[in-house]
Amino acid sequence: MTELTLRKIDDMHLHLRQGAMLKSVLPYSAKQCARAVIMPNTLPPVLTPKDVTRYEKEINAAGTGLEPLMTFKLVASTTPESILGLKKAGVVAGKLYPEGVTTNSEDGVSDFEAMYPVYQAMEKAGLVLCLHGEMPGAFCMDRESAFLETFKRITTDFPNLKIVLEHVTTQDAVEAVKKAGPNVGATITVHHMAITLDDVVGDKINPHNFCKPIAKRPDDRDALVAAATSGNAKFFLGTDSAPHTIESKECACGAAGVYTAPVVLPVLADIFEANQALDHLEAFTSINGATFYGLPLNEETITLHKKSWDVASSYDGVVPFMAGKTLAWQVV
Amino acid sequence: MTELTLRKIDDMHLHLRQGAMLKSVLPYSAKQCARAVIMPNTLPPVLTPKDVTRYEKEINAAGTGLEPLMTFKLVASTTPESILGLKKAGVVAGKLYPEGVTTNSEDGVSDFEAMYPVYQAMEKAGLVLCLHGEMPGAFCMDRESAFLETFKRITTDFPNLKIVLEHVTTQDAVEAVKKAGPNVGATITVHHMAITLDDVVGDKINPHNFCKPIAKRPDDRDALVAAATSGNAKFFLGTDSAPHTIESKECACGAAGVYTAPVVLPVLADIFEANQALDHLEAFTSINGATFYGLPLNEETITLHKKSWDVASSYDGVVPFMAGKTLAWQVV
Repeated sequence: MTELTLRKIDDMHLHLRQGAMLKSVLPYSAKQCARAVIMPNTLPPVLTPKDVTRYEKEINAAGTGLEPLMTFKLVASTTPESILGLKKAGVVAGKLYPEGVTTNSEDGVSDFEAMYPVYQAMEKAGLVLCLHGEMPGAFCMDRESAFLETFKRITTDFPNLKIVLEHVTTQDAVEAVKKAGPNVGATITVHHMAITLDDVVGDKINPHNFCKPIAKRPDDRDALVAAATSGNAKFFLGTDSAPHTIESKECACGAAGVYTAPVVLPVLADIFEANQALDHLEAFTSINGATFYGLPLNEETITLHKKSWDVASSYDGVVPFMAGKTLAWQVV
Repeated sequence: MTELTLRKIDDMHLHLRQGAMLKSVLPYSAKQCARAVIMPNTLPPVLTPKDVTRYEKEINAAGTGLEPLMTFKLVASTTPESILGLKKAGVVAGKLYPEGVTTNSEDGVSDFEAMYPVYQAMEKAGLVLCLHGEMPGAFCMDRESAFLETFKRITTDFPNLKIVLEHVTTQDAVEAVKKAGPNVGATITVHHMAITLDDVVGDKINPHNFCKPIAKRPDDRDALVAAATSGNAKFFLGTDSAPHTIESKECACGAAGVYTAPVVLPVLADIFEANQALDHLEAFTSINGATFYGLPLNEETITLHKKSWDVASSYDGVVPFMAGKTLAWQVV
């Protein structure tokens, strides 16, 4: 196949940042995505209806045409009473970060059961609960698996709450999502389908492939690829594209996050093609996520040509995933 | 205990580099070490008697008093006939790097059995075989365990060849060394007793804690500490202290190696004290290695005081292990 046309994609997990960084990165997502679920772990975080409105306005003011699907951050002080106001402000989901597990999660949740009244209010309001599924304090390679007990408890206790296990990285997590009820889905990133820990610390150390959760073993990556390419409606794209300046990556204490926005569809087309699953690509990028969130499918389309191109070494001071590599597919 | 006096230490695995870097790092090892086994993976490598003599001269010319125990690098073209000449040039050991597993190992060995005639010549000459025990191509966390079959075969086939499994990092490797014959020992580094993969990629990404073999799981670290602090004569210090400039670490493609030379004894004293094993520290640092190599014990002593000090953030452009941290023990 040399040409590929599909519905414009939905990125169900995206970090856009604020200010100059937002203006710089948003066009690369907008080129490929019709909509994106916007992560709320900005500084300050998106906690209140006012925060939601302010952040949504900032995104829309950039004028790229990408429709932001807004979220709020669940913190210990989030009350059940606040949920309706957030819903009215337009959020589609609330994002729960366990305390300290990733960028700007110092105010994350440590007692997951204490939040039950909030989950209940979200269930009632028809909001999605997005979980960063890592257990604080566990060894980095075990952190996701260690969270699955908590995940199972919440998904079982709230069968009518839509729950997304974000950026799954392990065989264990894929299996747990498959076994969970119809209220449960999972996002998979582009980079976790493409790399393992070997691409972070296997040869040299590459901070641009460093993210949370950390990329795992080859078997885990294969399980993610199998889930994404299977067409199973529980699994959909959430890139977790997370830009950091080159200075905050190439240092003694580098930030977590892989900036995939400029290469999302070309890399995915490569992976799906290699797995004889190009016919399932649109389900993964443009149907399963929208269906799970209860959104109409995008009508606009996007076309890729098989025409190789070299990924830039940097986009406005941010090193992208696959920097300097040649990719086979190109967005027209 | 507030003062600790022991025989000056032997570092049975040390990278000194060449030129300006050698002059910069050697004094920090010389301050604590009487002798050190000098790794031959320089550029160009130490392959011939002439290389050995040239490199030894360069080290001695620095005039630090540290006695270099010279080694040569085993490569595919190393012949059994060359071993006697190397022995006469003064080497104590030959170092085998599997192809591509670490810094400057592109010319390493890929067929371990093809080297049997060389091992035989080394056995006859009374030289030690030092193995970098990682299997090329295996997943980074499995690379050492994947090498153990090869290790077992060589150690069994050459019961009279002294063999050191260098910088062991896993429970598996510790067990394999314990089970092996009296011809087999292992070095353990300071940093592998102090860190796990969490200190490389658990929170932020820290290139200064990145080395080969990569630091493993908490259970693995505990097994190393148990082996080192047990007094078992098979286990001895080999720091693998490996300086790289800050530019070659804090970049998109950072080099492997932890620079521990300036902090070796203070960090070890901390670890041994925390494990109620200060009475075994001298065996680990100054007796077991010398005995294994058949060398007389160092007569000169070194004293540590319990007096806290802050590790510098950089030594001549090289970031040390524990940079900026406060250590409890200080070399007088």
